[in-house]
Amino acid sequence: MTKVLALNAGSSSLKMQLMEMPAEKLLCKGQVERIGFNDAIVTVKSADKKIKKIMAIKDHTKAIDILLKALVELAVITDYAEIKGAGHRIVQGGTYFNKSVVIDANVLKKIESLGELAPLHNPVAVIVIKALNAILPDIISVGVFDTAFHQSLAEVAYLYSIPLELSQKYAIRKYGAHGTSHDYVSHRAAEMLDKQYEDLKIITLHLGAGASMTAIKNGKSFDTSMGFTPIAGLTMGTRAGDIDISIITYLAEKLKISEKEVFEILNKKSGLLGLSGISSDSREIEDAMATDDRAKLAMDIFVDRIIGYIGSYYAKMGGVDVLVFTAGIGENSAIVRQMIIDRLSFLGIKLAPELNQVRGVEQVISTDDSTATVLLIPTNEELMIARDTFKII
Amino acid sequence: MTKVLALNAGSSSLKMQLMEMPAEKLLCKGQVERIGFNDAIVTVKSADKKIKKIMAIKDHTKAIDILLKALVELAVITDYAEIKGAGHRIVQGGTYFNKSVVIDANVLKKIESLGELAPLHNPVAVIVIKALNAILPDIISVGVFDTAFHQSLAEVAYLYSIPLELSQKYAIRKYGAHGTSHDYVSHRAAEMLDKQYEDLKIITLHLGAGASMTAIKNGKSFDTSMGFTPIAGLTMGTRAGDIDISIITYLAEKLKISEKEVFEILNKKSGLLGLSGISSDSREIEDAMATDDRAKLAMDIFVDRIIGYIGSYYAKMGGVDVLVFTAGIGENSAIVRQMIIDRLSFLGIKLAPELNQVRGVEQVISTDDSTATVLLIPTNEELMIARDTFKII
Repeated sequence: MTKVLALNAGSSSLKMQLMEMPAEKLLCKGQVERIGFNDAIVTVKSADKKIKKIMAIKDHTKAIDILLKALVELAVITDYAEIKGAGHRIVQGGTYFNKSVVIDANVLKKIESLGELAPLHNPVAVIVIKALNAILPDIISVGVFDTAFHQSLAEVAYLYSIPLELSQKYAIRKYGAHGTSHDYVSHRAAEMLDKQYEDLKIITLHLGAGASMTAIKNGKSFDTSMGFTPIAGLTMGTRAGDIDISIITYLAEKLKISEKEVFEILNKKSGLLGLSGISSDSREIEDAMATDDRAKLAMDIFVDRIIGYIGSYYAKMGGVDVLVFTAGIGENSAIVRQMIIDRLSFLGIKLAPELNQVRGVEQVISTDDSTATVLLIPTNEELMIARDTFKII
Repeated sequence: MTKVLALNAGSSSLKMQLMEMPAEKLLCKGQVERIGFNDAIVTVKSADKKIKKIMAIKDHTKAIDILLKALVELAVITDYAEIKGAGHRIVQGGTYFNKSVVIDANVLKKIESLGELAPLHNPVAVIVIKALNAILPDIISVGVFDTAFHQSLAEVAYLYSIPLELSQKYAIRKYGAHGTSHDYVSHRAAEMLDKQYEDLKIITLHLGAGASMTAIKNGKSFDTSMGFTPIAGLTMGTRAGDIDISIITYLAEKLKISEKEVFEILNKKSGLLGLSGISSDSREIEDAMATDDRAKLAMDIFVDRIIGYIGSYYAKMGGVDVLVFTAGIGENSAIVRQMIIDRLSFLGIKLAPELNQVRGVEQVISTDDSTATVLLIPTNEELMIARDTFKII
């Protein structure tokens, strides 16, 4: 048995899981939030014990040190040397990586160079990789890229209709995101249905605070809703998704702010939050829907954009066999799933209401005679990271 | 019989038709191109005669004067007083106008105030209206708005997922465009099929240098691909259509130019032109497709985006009964129509190849057993302008 870490660095957070492989047994789960603040929150849980601390954590180097020490403190390991590998979630792999790879000096340099395309994520991932290697010089680090799954997109899907020379020179293309999740749930779907992955036309709906959809055909990501960056596509918790590009300069002029400041609004104050005026959390929107017009409007727009993408992928793939709901909203909101699938009844896609009344369990939620199978599959990006890491080491 | 003018002012052009109503007889057709230059081109044709002049025309005021004089010169009219009304195509009617109206001082002020949303069009339309009223004080001028048809969009379709307060305060919404054309061809479609307009689910494809698609349900524009401005939606001759908004600031930084200059590229050097490196003209792209990879790519992307919108509208409307091709490419390119409809064969929508080998004639081009009827209908915005004008005066 081999112990493997799965690490996920956000702009001010670091999440960790320690797994025993190939048994896929979760030994310990921890995270640090509010990195850079004096009141950072450290939470680490083993099977039977838990640590929670509020303390100053100035950077991600300190955060990984604290999390590793907690593993010993909770007696999950007795010696760091027990950890053989670490898988790092890397948000942006550019065109360099279409699968997970061992992170050597050259790979690290590439991840660093892509920081411009993922300024909140790639730089902190690099910090964590370096810090972990400093503490555990013998560990094998593996990069698991959010974009790798979508590297299979054809030119016709990944290119924008801008001058081709600009796309080529500045690496402007649809990179997509949530690849590890779309990859995981689509493969699970084929397993659950006992079908060949390559034979299925699948639409995966990763609906969380960040939300994206992917069309999967011939065993490959065929199109996806996030684009050059994760602001594109669906209406999200606080992100605007697809809008007319002219709104950027128009708002900058009207509000007398810079275009960068407009992007702050479009990233952090838009989406469900901006439409509803209530919350970025779909649960709060759902609760308010019956009595609050703006909450209803926000949810209707959220669903409308999803229906648009389902139709678009249905037409582009020439049909759909399987729809998969995953991530926070997809796994937990029976109402959202119902609002979406009800709109597809004209295609013969039918939800089984009694099967839909669940949260976070792997199961079919469509009727036997539905023309496409609808599945609920909890995503597990950490497991994919651990699997890839174990496979490579 | 009543003589009515239909006028269409572009940034450096003015098109005119004189029609006899209600017979809908075209008496004369003229245009001035390169307004503002010393070598402006004036072309005016009556049933049997033609004028063509190259001359300096400094502004739209001079252009309308020249065109009116040509009507007398060609003996189409003997006295200006014979012209009872003039319909003006107005690109942007904002939320003020959901139908054509007589242009009084108040309406004129509103058209002027919307110049910010259509800087190339509304201001010159105002110049033409004023100039015509100065020459013909008794004429009744009617505004026919490109956006009016899309004022029926529901909030869920016209709102962007940005803070609702900003949408409301700054009138940010999907206005759409080509409304007169979508309106005309969709109504013609119902007439040709002898069906109630209100009962049909129609998708209209206005494919020209500017291209847009509209979903029409319950007799109303239900969704449309152009947005706050005409840069949104499909891949066009030189316009980028939908792209990730982050590309704006990214390109501004990379090219060390302003965001406004990036929009110049996205408006004038993108689309088919930017992808192919050959031409913005789809005919040239078609000719080069067999031997030139970039031409093929440009056409494939053009079709891919159209398929996406067809699927999106199909899902949002819950089906489609009729698809209508119109405008330059839609009316003339059998290849483009075939590339599109072939992709829809999985829905049972089938082109009749022998019916498709036509240009610019009104006819059904799908097979008898096609699940949706596909039509070719030449658009006639000038006729719609003349009809609305005659109806109102």
